[in-house]
Amino acid sequence: MKDRPRHRLFVDADLGPGATVALAEGQAHYVGNVLRLGDGDQIALFNGRDGEWRAGLARPGKKAVTALCEELLAPQPVEAETILVFAPIRGAKVELIAEKATELGASRLIPAQTRRSVVDKVNIARMRANAIEAAEQCGRLGVPAMAELRRLEQVLGDWDKAIPLFFCDEAGDAPPLIEAARAIGDAPAALLIGPEGGFEPAERSLMRRLPFIRPVSLGPRILRAETAVIAGLALLDAARRASWA
Amino acid sequence: MKDRPRHRLFVDADLGPGATVALAEGQAHYVGNVLRLGDGDQIALFNGRDGEWRAGLARPGKKAVTALCEELLAPQPVEAETILVFAPIRGAKVELIAEKATELGASRLIPAQTRRSVVDKVNIARMRANAIEAAEQCGRLGVPAMAELRRLEQVLGDWDKAIPLFFCDEAGDAPPLIEAARAIGDAPAALLIGPEGGFEPAERSLMRRLPFIRPVSLGPRILRAETAVIAGLALLDAARRASWA
Repeated sequence: MKDRPRHRLFVDADLGPGATVALAEGQAHYVGNVLRLGDGDQIALFNGRDGEWRAGLARPGKKAVTALCEELLAPQPVEAETILVFAPIRGAKVELIAEKATELGASRLIPAQTRRSVVDKVNIARMRANAIEAAEQCGRLGVPAMAELRRLEQVLGDWDKAIPLFFCDEAGDAPPLIEAARAIGDAPAALLIGPEGGFEPAERSLMRRLPFIRPVSLGPRILRAETAVIAGLALLDAARRASWA
Repeated sequence: MKDRPRHRLFVDADLGPGATVALAEGQAHYVGNVLRLGDGDQIALFNGRDGEWRAGLARPGKKAVTALCEELLAPQPVEAETILVFAPIRGAKVELIAEKATELGASRLIPAQTRRSVVDKVNIARMRANAIEAAEQCGRLGVPAMAELRRLEQVLGDWDKAIPLFFCDEAGDAPPLIEAARAIGDAPAALLIGPEGGFEPAERSLMRRLPFIRPVSLGPRILRAETAVIAGLALLDAARRASWA
């Protein structure tokens, strides 16, 4: 078997034996003018549904690039449902969250506005672009789904009560996430990270009454929001994989 | 007892009952012109040795600001020795490493040049400034010590063999860090994160022969170097704190 292609691209189109994908303009430019690949060169394609494919490139026109699926490199894996609910923060840090959540296996990102949130909109298209770039680079075959920004109360009101929501609470009396999540295995699970200023007392007591909320601690220090996201997802992922024999 | 001062400053000077600290020029500017604090206002001071002190400000001159230690707010905690050995990466990401390692409790940062490192110098002063800022914001009473960049072979050659060095190996057959570190408690421990391109086979086999090296896995995905640092330190910190009853 030949080496895996060095470059991976996420596409929307269906992939399968003999499928031909016309690359979008930006990707065609990247492949042709940045990577300087041409007829007969190979890349890997994935779309989050059909696995990863080796594809041969062709340049039928001056700007157009198509890719012909030639070989299934890896089937689409079944990923555990890992949902991140997070209070929106300023620009570059939201992009960092999208990138790192993708690397660490989050399947769904839900921005939720809390009472102390200072940011009241989220650039979902930008986050999605960061997530796609991260998936292309880290070898993951999926990209997290992105929800539009809603109020935290709405997100909690519509919550699927079968999914535990680990609420990272700075109050300090909660058990460590790594212990609270140790029996979770591959079951769906979610993480809730608050805004930089923390939750209001009223929000905290509302949440503590909800049956699917599991207060947890990320440790004794006050983590910035994006640090809490990365640390929390790493711990949840580790809890899923560890054998606690 | 009065509220804790909202602003925390790291200083080099000794702190103690009645100690007066002349703030450095940059800090005096920040306190006087950015925070707009003046005579009688209070800040918290820490230096990594003498605990955290409430201090009253005085402005004896146009640009000078002094702070008089009035009350011990918290004694200096004993922190577990957590060493991060990392291959240097480009500018902003090294600053992210310094910031996040401080938030997550690293006590010492050792940049180590590997064969695939593309970066051959590290701005230690800049990293230290990022670490101090992170400590001021996250409530930590210490700042990680910073070593100068050396070759990985030198760092390993001088290693204190009593300290396990968890080597985050992408090879895949290593146990998860959270399991390998579960008995570590408060003992000194270290984490080794390689460069973006991974270690060379010769480096990997050298390391696997060293008795203090413990190969571990951070999961199935290829993490960027700074993600591996943050995830690894969060997992090591969690392993220290969890009760594995």
